[in-house]
Parts: sequence; structure tokens; C-alpha cells
Amino acid sequence: MDIASIVGILMGISLLILSIMIAPGATFKGFIDYPSMMVVVGGAISAVLISFPLRNILGTFKVFKNVFFNRQESFSDLIEQIVSLAETARRDGLLALEGRIEELDNSFVILGIQMAVDGTRPEVIESILRTDMDAVATRHRNGKNVLDQMGRFAPAFGMIGTLMGLIIMLGDMSPDTIGAGMAVALLTTLYGAIVSNLFCLPCAEKLGFINRHELLTMEIIVRGIMGIQSGDNPRVIEQKLNTFVPPAMRAGSQEAA
Amino acid sequence: MDIASIVGILMGISLLILSIMIAPGATFKGFIDYPSMMVVVGGAISAVLISFPLRNILGTFKVFKNVFFNRQESFSDLIEQIVSLAETARRDGLLALEGRIEELDNSFVILGIQMAVDGTRPEVIESILRTDMDAVATRHRNGKNVLDQMGRFAPAFGMIGTLMGLIIMLGDMSPDTIGAGMAVALLTTLYGAIVSNLFCLPCAEKLGFINRHELLTMEIIVRGIMGIQSGDNPRVIEQKLNTFVPPAMRAGSQEAA
Amino acid sequence: MDIASIVGILMGISLLILSIMIAPGATFKGFIDYPSMMVVVGGAISAVLISFPLRNILGTFKVFKNVFFNRQESFSDLIEQIVSLAETARRDGLLALEGRIEELDNSFVILGIQMAVDGTRPEVIESILRTDMDAVATRHRNGKNVLDQMGRFAPAFGMIGTLMGLIIMLGDMSPDTIGAGMAVALLTTLYGAIVSNLFCLPCAEKLGFINRHELLTMEIIVRGIMGIQSGDNPRVIEQKLNTFVPPAMRAGSQEAA
Amino acid sequence: MDIASIVGILMGISLLILSIMIAPGATFKGFIDYPSMMVVVGGAISAVLISFPLRNILGTFKVFKNVFFNRQESFSDLIEQIVSLAETARRDGLLALEGRIEELDNSFVILGIQMAVDGTRPEVIESILRTDMDAVATRHRNGKNVLDQMGRFAPAFGMIGTLMGLIIMLGDMSPDTIGAGMAVALLTTLYGAIVSNLFCLPCAEKLGFINRHELLTMEIIVRGIMGIQSGDNPRVIEQKLNTFVPPAMRAGSQEAA
Amino acid sequence: MDIASIVGILMGISLLILSIMIAPGATFKGFIDYPSMMVVVGGAISAVLISFPLRNILGTFKVFKNVFFNRQESFSDLIEQIVSLAETARRDGLLALEGRIEELDNSFVILGIQMAVDGTRPEVIESILRTDMDAVATRHRNGKNVLDQMGRFAPAFGMIGTLMGLIIMLGDMSPDTIGAGMAVALLTTLYGAIVSNLFCLPCAEKLGFINRHELLTMEIIVRGIMGIQSGDNPRVIEQKLNTFVPPAMRAGSQEAA
Repeated sequence: MDIASIVGILMGISLLILSIMIAPGATFKGFIDYPSMMVVVGGAISAVLISFPLRNILGTFKVFKNVFFNRQESFSDLIEQIVSLAETARRDGLLALEGRIEELDNSFVILGIQMAVDGTRPEVIESILRTDMDAVATRHRNGKNVLDQMGRFAPAFGMIGTLMGLIIMLGDMSPDTIGAGMAVALLTTLYGAIVSNLFCLPCAEKLGFINRHELLTMEIIVRGIMGIQSGDNPRVIEQKLNTFVPPAMRAGSQEAA
Repeated sequence: MDIASIVGILMGISLLILSIMIAPGATFKGFIDYPSMMVVVGGAISAVLISFPLRNILGTFKVFKNVFFNRQESFSDLIEQIVSLAETARRDGLLALEGRIEELDNSFVILGIQMAVDGTRPEVIESILRTDMDAVATRHRNGKNVLDQMGRFAPAFGMIGTLMGLIIMLGDMSPDTIGAGMAVALLTTLYGAIVSNLFCLPCAEKLGFINRHELLTMEIIVRGIMGIQSGDNPRVIEQKLNTFVPPAMRAGSQEAA
Repeated sequence: MDIASIVGILMGISLLILSIMIAPGATFKGFIDYPSMMVVVGGAISAVLISFPLRNILGTFKVFKNVFFNRQESFSDLIEQIVSLAETARRDGLLALEGRIEELDNSFVILGIQMAVDGTRPEVIESILRTDMDAVATRHRNGKNVLDQMGRFAPAFGMIGTLMGLIIMLGDMSPDTIGAGMAVALLTTLYGAIVSNLFCLPCAEKLGFINRHELLTMEIIVRGIMGIQSGDNPRVIEQKLNTFVPPAMRAGSQEAA
Repeated sequence: MDIASIVGILMGISLLILSIMIAPGATFKGFIDYPSMMVVVGGAISAVLISFPLRNILGTFKVFKNVFFNRQESFSDLIEQIVSLAETARRDGLLALEGRIEELDNSFVILGIQMAVDGTRPEVIESILRTDMDAVATRHRNGKNVLDQMGRFAPAFGMIGTLMGLIIMLGDMSPDTIGAGMAVALLTTLYGAIVSNLFCLPCAEKLGFINRHELLTMEIIVRGIMGIQSGDNPRVIEQKLNTFVPPAMRAGSQEAA
Repeated sequence: MDIASIVGILMGISLLILSIMIAPGATFKGFIDYPSMMVVVGGAISAVLISFPLRNILGTFKVFKNVFFNRQESFSDLIEQIVSLAETARRDGLLALEGRIEELDNSFVILGIQMAVDGTRPEVIESILRTDMDAVATRHRNGKNVLDQMGRFAPAFGMIGTLMGLIIMLGDMSPDTIGAGMAVALLTTLYGAIVSNLFCLPCAEKLGFINRHELLTMEIIVRGIMGIQSGDNPRVIEQKLNTFVPPAMRAGSQEAA
């Protein structure tokens, strides 16, 4: 997954750079105008700062990196691991799980197993794990909202910048500068469109997917840990957990990406 | 929160001013045209006056200042205060709360405690407090509606102003005034876009957040006061009230902002 | 309420006239073009004639005047009147209400009281009154629909007119008429935007409000008359009716407007 | 109803023709360009052919003529007729209805009465009539969908045509042909806007109305025939059927149109 | 069905080619610009790569060909076949179906019959078949989503390309190249509009139809095979399956296309 998103963003940027490079008479310098960037990016950030509580905006950075650097666990590996833990628990008792905690890498699984080992009551374990799920879902939803709004405000401030550029240009129309003035004016609209269509909107879309995937992962873990704690048969646990996996992701159809 | 909104609005305005200052050949005078402002702001206000009852429009001013000057109570401080009141009530009786009223600053808490001290019946207290909540929610929702509509009508009247400017300009096309005429014509579109994207739409979005936060605060207070009145254990009250706090806001994650 | 809508429409029109008056070089004559009006208004009416049954379109005129000439009863006056009628009925019997009918001015109240005096059965009274409510709601909803569609078709026919003007102008481009031709072409877009944003859309929005207000008024009357007929205590009636009034409209917050 | 739609379409077309006739310097020839029509209408039809199964597109023609040539039965005439049939059935038995079939003109009523006369079981009659209703609803809904999509694709292909025209024109810019070239280029946008706003969208809207009206008519007929067959009192049938008629259409408010 | 889609796409492309051919002064060469194609198609693909997991994008190709090469089974043929299988099963036992498997061509029917012959338990058969249905529905829905997003990003990148072209052109305005430069700039908008309106959006719409048709087909097969396995009367099976067929597709109204 990450590979697709990274490839996508690199490919999009390369295409734009390439198309400038091969265009006769085009220079990179003509496409860079810092005040224009300031208006588009700064304006969109201003609008977002007004729209959302600071906490939600800061949280966006945390979830934003997930779009590109999120190693998605395959559901089958996860279920396999839970089943193996269930076997240990059934054979050697819940306390035997303590020795296996360090081989785990998913902090959510570790939290659950640790509580099970500590003899925390099942209702309390479930309630704590579900509170964590809620927090993740809220963080993702807020992040998606902020990105969606930036994707809407960036082209608006691009248009504002272009209008300002046109007004400046029209106030002083000498035939030899009018072209350059208009080019600079259009840059803000261009920046707004790129920020929106190559960054904000696709990343917001992806965050929705990541959110659904992570919540499903956590749901499987919660059910698995509840099963382990109540000493269910590992086969039964495996079967139950598999019913949560969407058909397209079963049976080794998991890509490496 | 307020800081973010104030920073956002100041940052947005500064960016626009800055970008005019650094643009070669641009003057502030070129960006100020009172008739254009009149058409955009006046037109949007006219449309809103037709659309909504006068009461709703006037109410918008009251809630609008909340976007910038709203000191949001942290949920944990609020719950702590309610628990402390509950302890007093349990130790020294409901009447002992009278002595603590003056240390309270939330008028909604004061109203509830006062009624509890006066021996008002629980159903009546709850019904009066909930009526207040409804009134707050209605005021916020109406304010958000008015801002949303202004955010939609402002660009429309911006376009109307630009069309009028273009028609005037085209009626008398002398090569040396056409540029200035078109610049003035575009100003209304610029004003409409700024009013909509830097003020109305982000503030409407923020009002939605403030509304949800305030309703949650009031819900916690109502439940707390009902618990105090019925003499519940302060620990039980604390636990129950905490279930209303969204996960992202628990455990000291409250910012100072 | 009416005052706000009338002020809004007058203010919007005045602003547009004023901005033409103060613009240097602008003449009213340049903003009036009958064929352009014909295309925009006639085209929008044509599209609406195709879209809706004739009955719904004619009904729009009836409800449209409500936007400006609708005297909205205050809920508290209405409830006071119903309570006073209930007191008469309780003291002197239902028949005594006959003498008070002529002091009433709301035809819906009169209809209900008349039926109560005539000894019509409660179910029949309620069913007849509710049928009237349905008819009012349908009429308002149809009127809002027609206005909404006109608000969508007017700018579309504005654009059609402008395209036609541009095509005519471009077919015969002499440098001294091109400006005037283009000005006339843009007039249709201007007309479409004004018709939509200053008339249709705000009035459609207002009709929605009026509809909700009138239905609430009728609901209160229906409940009140049912209470009067069954001989309820006037205090109980008052209390029940007050629960229907939205919080923002209670306690003397009713404006004169 | 039909009159309104026919008047609307004729009025819309006449207005456009008239506005060309009275515009100084405009010729009809300048507004007719067959390749442009081909791109707009052909393009929209192509997109619709890809979007929908052939069956749905062909069905659109069948329902499309309903917009203009649909004689809508008044509900009161229909109920009167059903009541009269119920009286015959009650007086002379179900078989006596056979003699009255030829005076009926609604094929749906004839189908139902014929089955009742033939002694078909009630459940079978209802199931067959309701299958017919489903088929009508599906046909109308598909037709509305196709028209809605054409209303969306026509302006898109209008823009495609204009872009193509501009590109051709710009490839060979001689000052004396540029105006004519641009005029032709704009024609496709004009065609797209007219096809969409004067034909597709209003007709789609109207089809929705016709669908609701026809389904209501059929519902009344089904209930009436079930009542006739079970030998209900004609007065009771009349009362029950009247509850299906929307308030605005009762009590002689039916227009001739 | 396929024929309509293939005809639609060929007709759309032919119309565009034809309109270039018959336009005086137009050359195909003027409409082909590889960098522009690269920006539009590459940009839209980049945005889609960021938006969706790689698996969903790859799955789109699999379902995309269904739009054009999908032989849709008629429901009546399918039901006839199932009924014939049911007769064999009833006459000669479930095992006798083994001999008829090779005359079947629908792999979903074969899977079900094979399991029935193998004596798999009914719950297991139903669960396996329904898992397959889920997988098909997920694949189609993902494919539709990807196409819808491409249909939204393609015009956005068309606009980005046009802005880049305009900026390059304006940076170096010599009167003899400005026309050509602008023509090339507009090409990206043209490409974006064609990709979106002739390919992505209509195909996404069609995929929705195909999905509903295929799920209905599979539902009929599942019910049929469950009926065959439980030894139901073939007539009863036929009757039950027919209730799933939408009215418009019953009674030989199936086209050959």
C-alpha cells in the first residue's frame, strides 16, 4: 500500500517536472514564485486554523505520515499470531503468555496480552481496548476532515491569489510586462490545483481506507484477546476471526506492497 | 482553541497584505474600492436578510464572537469541580453548597446548584437545564446556517459586481482606462472570495465544533448536578461523567490553547 | 420577519442601483436590455413550466407573497388566546365559545372552534384540521421547489443568453461595436445571477422557515382545540402547548418585526 | 399538465428564436452548425449508450412522450368510476361488470375488472396488478435516470466541442476569421446548455411527477378493485380511496389542463 | 448490453474524429500532444495511486473489461437451466447431476452443483457461494470507485496542464506563437474532459448496473442450488426464482444485445 502512495506522489511530481522540462521555452524559474506559494499554502492553513481546534490540526500530522509510511499488517499473519498465542495460553495457561510478549510487535496486541496476563477482568480489558479504538478512529476522522478542508480551501486561495495578481497587472498595463504579470497571477491557481488534487484530496481518500483497515485489525485483535482470555479453542478463534476479513483479502491475495 | 482561530484570521489577513506589499508595482490603494465592498457585503447581507427571520440573524452576532473569544473549559477541570461539589454535598448536605456558589464561574453550573440548594424537584431541574441546552443548540445552529449562507452569497454577489463592472467598462472602452476598469471589476470577485473563504466558511465550521463542545459540557453538568442532588457517591459520579469525554480529550491531552 | 425580508430586498436593489449611480461613466440605460430580460426570465419560466404541473406553479404565487406580507403570530399571544377560550369553555360550556368567535382573527382557530361549538366529534375535528395542515405543507413545499428550480435555471439561461450574445457579436466584429456587444451579452448573465441570488434562492429559503413556523402554529392550535373540547384545565393546556414552542421563542424574546 | 409542458417547451424555443430575430446583426444561419450539433447530441448519446443497458435507453423514448402527451386522469373522476362499478357489482353481482368493461378506457382498470369477472383469486389479482405497477415504476425511473445523465453529459460535450473549436481556431489565427471561428466554437457550449436546461433536466423533473401521479392512480385502482371483488359497500370504498388523494387535489381543485 | 457500450464508445470516438475531419483548417496533428496526454492521464493515475490501495487499482482492470466484453446471461435461460437440473436431481438423484456438469458454462453454477454432488452440507454450500458473491460485489464496488475518482481527477489535471501551458506561453509572448501555444495549452483540458466524460464516468455508471445484474444472477443461482439440494419440486423452484427477476426483464422482453 505504502509503495503505491509513494509511487503515486513521486510519479505525479515527476510528470509535472518532466512536462516543464520538455516544453520548448519553459524554465523552472518561471514556475516558482514564493509569494504565490505563501498565499495558497498560507491561506489554506489560515482557513484551516480558523475552522478546527488546534488539537485536531496537530493530530493531522501524526496520521498524515501513515499515508506513506504505514506498514499494513496482513490479516492472515495477524490471525496466525493470535492463534499461536491462543495455543500457548491453552497449553500452558495465561501466565505463559508473558514470555511471548517480547516477540510481539503490535503495541495493541501487547497491551491486550499484558492485561490478560495481569488477570484484568474481561469487561475491563474490552473497555480499555475499545477506548483505544475510538481514539484511533477519532484521530483518523479528524485528520481526514482537515485534509478535505485544505483540499477545498487551497484552490479557493489559488483563485484569490490569481485575482490579486490580475488586479496588480491591470493597474499597470505595459505591453511588455503584461504577459509575465499574468503568468505569475496564474501560478497561484496552479499551486492551488496541485496542492488540492495531488496531495490533499488523494491523501484524505487514503486515510479513510487506512482508518477502515486499522479498525478492522483492532477489532480482530480485541476479539482474539477476549477469546484467548476465556480459553477458547484456537481453531474456533481462527474461524471466528476469519469471518471479519473481507473476501478480497483472504487466501493469500495479500500483496507485498 | 481561540488562539488558533485568532492566529488563523490574523495570519490570513497578514498574508494577503504582505503579498500586496512585496508585489512590484502593487499599491494598497488599488485594492480598496468602497462601492465594490458595498456590493459584496451589502448584497450578501441583503440575501441573508431575505432568507432568515431577523431574530436568527441578530443571534448570529452573539454566537459569532464565540469563534474568537470563547474560553473553552477543559472537561477534566469541570469534572473535578463537580466531584468536589458532590463531596461537599455528601459531607455537609445540599444546603452547604450555597456557600460554594460564589467560587463557581460557569453560569450553567451556578443555575443548577442554586436550584438544588433551593430544593427544586429533580425533574424540574433537569427540564429547566435541558431547555437551556436546547436554546444554546438552536442559537448555534442558526448562527452556523447564517454564516454558511453568507459564505455562499458573498461570492455570488462578487460575481454580480464584477459583471456590472465589466459592463460599465465595455460601454466605454478607451485603451487607457480599460485596465483600471477591469481591475476594479475584479475586486468584487476578490472581496467575495475572501469574505467567503477567510471568514464565513471557516467560522461556520468552527461554530459547529464549539456547539458540539458546549453541548457536551452542558450534558456533563446536567448529569453531575442530577448525581449531586440524588446524593450519589462522588467516585461514581466521576466515573460516569468521564464516559462522556471523547477519548482524545482525556488524560491530560488538553492543550492550554 | 416581514420587515427583514422587505428591508433585504429593498436594500439589495438599492445597493445595485447606487453602485451604478456612483460608478463613473455608468448609465442606467446600459443596464437595461429587454431581450436579455426576456431570455433569462422567460427561459427560466419555460423550464419551470416543463418541470412542474401547472397547479404547482400557480400555487407558488399564492405562497410567494407570504415571504413579504406574512404577519407571523407570536406563539405566546396565540397560546394566551387559546387559554382564554379554554377558560370560557370550562366556565360557561362549549356553546359559550360561539359568542367569542367574532373576536378571533385566525381562520384556522375559527374553523376549529366552530366545529367544537357545533358538537362535531373530536376525531372528525382533528382529521379535518390535519387535512388542512397537510394542504398548507404541500403548498409551501411545492412553492419552495418551484423557487429553487427557478434559482437554478435563471443562471443557466443567463449563460445561454450570454453565449448567444457573444456568438452574434463575434459574427460581426467591428472594433467600435465589439465593446457594446459584449456588454449586452454579459447582461443576461448578470440578470440570471441577480434573479437567482437576490430573489429565488433567498425566498425559497425563507419559505422553508415560514412553512415550519406555520405548521408549528397549526399544531399548537389543533392541540389547543382538542384540549378545549375535552374540557381540560386551562393551566394544563397552557403548559402542554408551551412545550411545542422552540426555546428561542419563549419568554418575550418575540420581536415586533 | 401536458399543456404546461407543451407551452413551456414552445415558449422556451420561441424566446430563443425571437431573441435572435430582434438582435441587430444576428442571422439564424449563424446559430446553426451541424458538426457542433453532432458533437453535443452525439456525444451525450454516446456517453449514455455506454452508461446504460440498451433496454433502459430504448424504454426512455416510451416514457418520454408521456411528458407531453400524457392525459392525466383526475382522481375524483377515477374514484367516481370505481364507485359506480362497485355499485353495479353489489346490485347485480360481479359478473354484471362484464357488460360495463367496454365503457372503461383505462387499461389497468379493464385488466383488473376482467380478472375479477373471470373469478381469479384476490391474491392473484393483486399480485398481477402490483407487478404491473412495479414495471411502470421501473420504466419511469430508468427514463428519468437516462434524461438526468443526458442533462449532465450534454454540457460536458458542449465544452469538449468548444475546446476543439478553439484549438482549431488558434492553430490558424488570421484576424479576419478568428471571430467567426470563435463564434462556431461557442455554439457547442450553447447547444449543450440548451439541450440540458430546456429539454433534459426539466423533462426528467416532470417524469418524476408523472411517475408519482401514475403510481398513485394505480394504487387507487388496485385498492378499488380489491374492494369491489370482496363486495365492500361502495360508500366505504369511496371513503377509503379518498384518503389516498393528496389534499391539494381534492374538492374540485383539479384543473382542466 | 455489451453492444450498446461498444457502440457508444466507438460512436463517441468517431464523432470526435469526424468533427475534426470536416472542420475546415483542422488537422489531426493539432490535436495530438504527447506531453499533454502524459499530464492528464499520468496525473489522474498518480492521484488514484495515492488514493487507493494497489490491490483495488489492479482489480479495476479485471472488472473494467466487463463493461465491454460481458456476456450477460438472460435470467429466463438461467432459470430454465436450473429447473432442468432440478428435474434431473429429482428423477435420478443428486449424483446424476455429475454427468450434466460439463454442459454447464457458468462457473458459479458449476461450483454449486459440484458441491451438491459431493454431498457438502447445505449451510457450507450457501456460506461458500455467498462469500464468492461478496468478493464479486467488493471487486465491482472498488472498480467503480476507482473509475469515479479518475473521472474527477482527469479534468483537474487537465486544468493543471492548461494552466502550465498558459504560464509557459505567457512567459514568452511573441504574436506568431501565442495562438499555437494556447492551442496546446487547451489540449490538456480537452483530454481531461474526454477521458472523464467518454470513458471514466459512463463506465463507472455501467459497472454499477453490471454489479447489480451479476449479484441478482448469483442470488438466483444460490437459491436454485439450495432448492435442488433439498429436493424441492422443480415447479416450485421456478416460481420462487421468478420472483427475483425484475418485471421489465420477464416475459421475453430480454434483448439479444
